[in-house]
Amino acid sequence: MQTHQDAVENTLAFLDRCGIQLSDREKGMIEVADFGLPDYPRSGLQLLTYINTPRYCAKELVLLPNQTCPEHRHPPFNNTSGKQETFRCRWGEVYLFVDDEELSLNNANGQPVCQPPEGYEQWYTCQRYILLRAGEQYTVKPDTRHWFQAGKQGAVISEFSSESRDDLDIFTDPNIKRIG
Amino acid sequence: MQTHQDAVENTLAFLDRCGIQLSDREKGMIEVADFGLPDYPRSGLQLLTYINTPRYCAKELVLLPNQTCPEHRHPPFNNTSGKQETFRCRWGEVYLFVDDEELSLNNANGQPVCQPPEGYEQWYTCQRYILLRAGEQYTVKPDTRHWFQAGKQGAVISEFSSESRDDLDIFTDPNIKRIG
Repeated sequence: MQTHQDAVENTLAFLDRCGIQLSDREKGMIEVADFGLPDYPRSGLQLLTYINTPRYCAKELVLLPNQTCPEHRHPPFNNTSGKQETFRCRWGEVYLFVDDEELSLNNANGQPVCQPPEGYEQWYTCQRYILLRAGEQYTVKPDTRHWFQAGKQGAVISEFSSESRDDLDIFTDPNIKRIG
Repeated sequence: MQTHQDAVENTLAFLDRCGIQLSDREKGMIEVADFGLPDYPRSGLQLLTYINTPRYCAKELVLLPNQTCPEHRHPPFNNTSGKQETFRCRWGEVYLFVDDEELSLNNANGQPVCQPPEGYEQWYTCQRYILLRAGEQYTVKPDTRHWFQAGKQGAVISEFSSESRDDLDIFTDPNIKRIG
């Protein structure tokens, strides 16, 4: 069984492999999000927030091999349209599913490139995706459903965004609690 | 003499050394800022803008060895207090000078750690600085004068900020034009 400390060590190893330097203080700030689901690490996300202000936010996200961040959206708040975010893949590969008509269909060739975590399929509704490799990025519009899954090596992703309010996230799966 | 193409190649080499992957399109988008001054590369900055929207902005900045980005501030615009920015050093060292009473004095021990570019001293007024090494960051408040100089190896810096409007920057040196 993977402990919290294992998850943190794993995350630090991914960031180090990617050449991302952290202060000792930041090494102690790694967040392990299990979304209150029993299937972590299959569903989950590890992250470090560099800065989060009412004006902008920047984080590093780490996905373990084939790990999935469950489907959610960022609703309007404080007279804003909701969090807008840009995912920039730094290392590995990530399949980003978004309700965006301009993206490819998951099963365009008969065989889907990604499957949601087994047993949770009903909570994944986005049919279209973009594959991001290192050096590629995509911006998710506010209040738009999305989820993402790493390729077999895992992934490191820089997230640039407007203010982050994780407590307001709305997950398609009503059982999920992002903030404990 | 250093040509524009030399500066771009040099910048790409710094980013590559730092493990930062770019798309081919982005490699063609490297910006070389000489600030309209005759002493580039002593004064200057190389950068790549990943995303710039009314809600947030993210860039990579590259400083050549001992290169200086001249003193400036980001004034209020569009009912905002002006650009707020977080500098995160990814590689090398950068001396960031800011009008912030909590920082160290440049000449606290009698010998200043940094000198402005020779002949331009009058346009550098900030007396306090913070040294950022890889994995360290600092946030500059809106409308606050600042300038920065790389250590002897140069530096790669991620900039996270509110919307960037380089055309509005106010430089202490009235001869500087940021945008041609």
